[in-house]
Amino acid sequence: MLFETILRHGQHVRILDQTRLPLTWQSVTLTSLEEMAHAIRSMQVRGAPLIGASAAYGVALAMQADASDAGLTHALETLAATRPTAVNLHWALARMQTLLAPLAPAERSAAAWAEADQIRIEDIAANQAIGQHGLSILKSTLLESRTQRPLQSMTHCNAGALATCGWGTALAPVYAALQAGIAQHVWVSETRPRNQGYLTAAELAANQVPHTLIADNAAGLLLQQGKVDIVITGADRIAANGDTANKVGTYLKALAAREAGVPFYIAAPWSTIDLACPNGAAIPIEERSAEELRLATGLLADGEIASVRCIDATEAVCNPAFDITPAALITGIITERGVFAPGELV
Amino acid sequence: MLFETILRHGQHVRILDQTRLPLTWQSVTLTSLEEMAHAIRSMQVRGAPLIGASAAYGVALAMQADASDAGLTHALETLAATRPTAVNLHWALARMQTLLAPLAPAERSAAAWAEADQIRIEDIAANQAIGQHGLSILKSTLLESRTQRPLQSMTHCNAGALATCGWGTALAPVYAALQAGIAQHVWVSETRPRNQGYLTAAELAANQVPHTLIADNAAGLLLQQGKVDIVITGADRIAANGDTANKVGTYLKALAAREAGVPFYIAAPWSTIDLACPNGAAIPIEERSAEELRLATGLLADGEIASVRCIDATEAVCNPAFDITPAALITGIITERGVFAPGELV
Repeated sequence: MLFETILRHGQHVRILDQTRLPLTWQSVTLTSLEEMAHAIRSMQVRGAPLIGASAAYGVALAMQADASDAGLTHALETLAATRPTAVNLHWALARMQTLLAPLAPAERSAAAWAEADQIRIEDIAANQAIGQHGLSILKSTLLESRTQRPLQSMTHCNAGALATCGWGTALAPVYAALQAGIAQHVWVSETRPRNQGYLTAAELAANQVPHTLIADNAAGLLLQQGKVDIVITGADRIAANGDTANKVGTYLKALAAREAGVPFYIAAPWSTIDLACPNGAAIPIEERSAEELRLATGLLADGEIASVRCIDATEAVCNPAFDITPAALITGIITERGVFAPGELV
Repeated sequence: MLFETILRHGQHVRILDQTRLPLTWQSVTLTSLEEMAHAIRSMQVRGAPLIGASAAYGVALAMQADASDAGLTHALETLAATRPTAVNLHWALARMQTLLAPLAPAERSAAAWAEADQIRIEDIAANQAIGQHGLSILKSTLLESRTQRPLQSMTHCNAGALATCGWGTALAPVYAALQAGIAQHVWVSETRPRNQGYLTAAELAANQVPHTLIADNAAGLLLQQGKVDIVITGADRIAANGDTANKVGTYLKALAAREAGVPFYIAAPWSTIDLACPNGAAIPIEERSAEELRLATGLLADGEIASVRCIDATEAVCNPAFDITPAALITGIITERGVFAPGELV
């Protein structure tokens, strides 16, 4: 099942509001640059490839209102400032700038819409290719596994259909395996503080892929116990040396995978690779709102759910949204151009 | 500030209901074996040393109602079945059995109360000694640290005053350092799914110890970035070879600490060491309710807090409450008898 994560509707853009998932599947119509910038910042759209396409559509919305040079510059700067880590955002904006800057203002709106549509279509194709390259890896992993059980993969955050315009990156091989009739099961980690694991669980459920939700903290135990055959996550930025920024917590899974002798793969479109960035230390890490951590639910002794608990607003919080997995922990990077060792990107 | 986590009041026991923390500090009076068993199971009392003392008081409550041999056996079996991992529970029950079984039924109630009080007093003393042994380690760590910043320690879950009858285990050295006037800061991880990190934050705040709350997922990044000088956690059971069961997620922190060259200590009373258990693989790991993971809060795009989200009740969940940190990742075990390398327990 494909989701309409982002789609042009005439002069507007319709997105699925991912802050309401998985309980409410509600689309929102965006009509302006500001609305798109807010949608990216507030994570109504999220996932590096989807953020890239959203930024492109944001430029298209902006060009409808003001296609002057100043309007173009304003649109590019506004969107660039929404989120710092995912390089796909900057890749898409650079692509829009390269196309639109030389054009006369009157030509920019139509060209922007067409280019945004093209970025969306290319993302769907990249997802498809990543799925096929990843499928080969899953088949090899299954052959090497000495158990009769279904293939056990683990992921982190959501790098599935909901994070892209098509079938996803890290989940694309899972969906390819589903189509190939391979018996499989996916370990889905909650992904605090924003719980994107619930998005992964929801889309796997919609596609009838067997899966189990775990706390992020449980990933080490499962790997140690031999319950995982392969770990695949997405990426928000891959440096030239293969160091990879992805949702915070990815690094801990990579450490536990190495300790357990389990292969650890990154799946991402080529646009996630930032050759201008030498290594992980050069990747900016987004610090998000303390509010994301000050909220929690609890189970009372009588089994009742405690209403939303807010921790004291004076409580200091550190909330980095991403971490860096060093290239040495990465078995391979699955892209639409094939599978690369982290050291062979340059 | 010491908290009245558990205290005898005449023929009853008063406990602090920890499922309502940190927003509500509410004591509950327990009058029967069944009420104490429920309090342990539902985590109104939690933390390995406090569970041990609670079990002892549970036996005392039971002896008031039925001090026959059958009553004693029933009490021991009921309490033993509440939670499987923390060995302090079984240690306290074995101690009560050894004392009470040879006595005449008429003598058991008074003896049980006295022994439970004694276990509580010994726990306070053990906390104190652990604090002093840990303080020496913190002082050495501070000397070796080449920065001018306050000492940066990290913990997981809550192994503080709220987990014991006194000042705590993992946090006892922190409180000793506070008294010694050492400038320090503690990184507190949320500890999903039950958020015991909020308890740690609450008790550090009450004692004016500077600290910062993080998502469990962020621990790897902070260690990698050199922001942590030492990691200290509690334990629920330490096997003879030094492998240690503690709150799920501890193992991931230990892996990241080793990778960063940061010392990783366990702090626990000697009663947490189970010499009958050869290694971590022999420690039973409690699987808790799926409900603990099916609850979450969310931030909507308008900044509003989504009311409690319940994931589809058909969603499969795996919820192990503990994991095993291999002895090889543990720098030392801080007990009331001194600091031991994990290989020197036997």
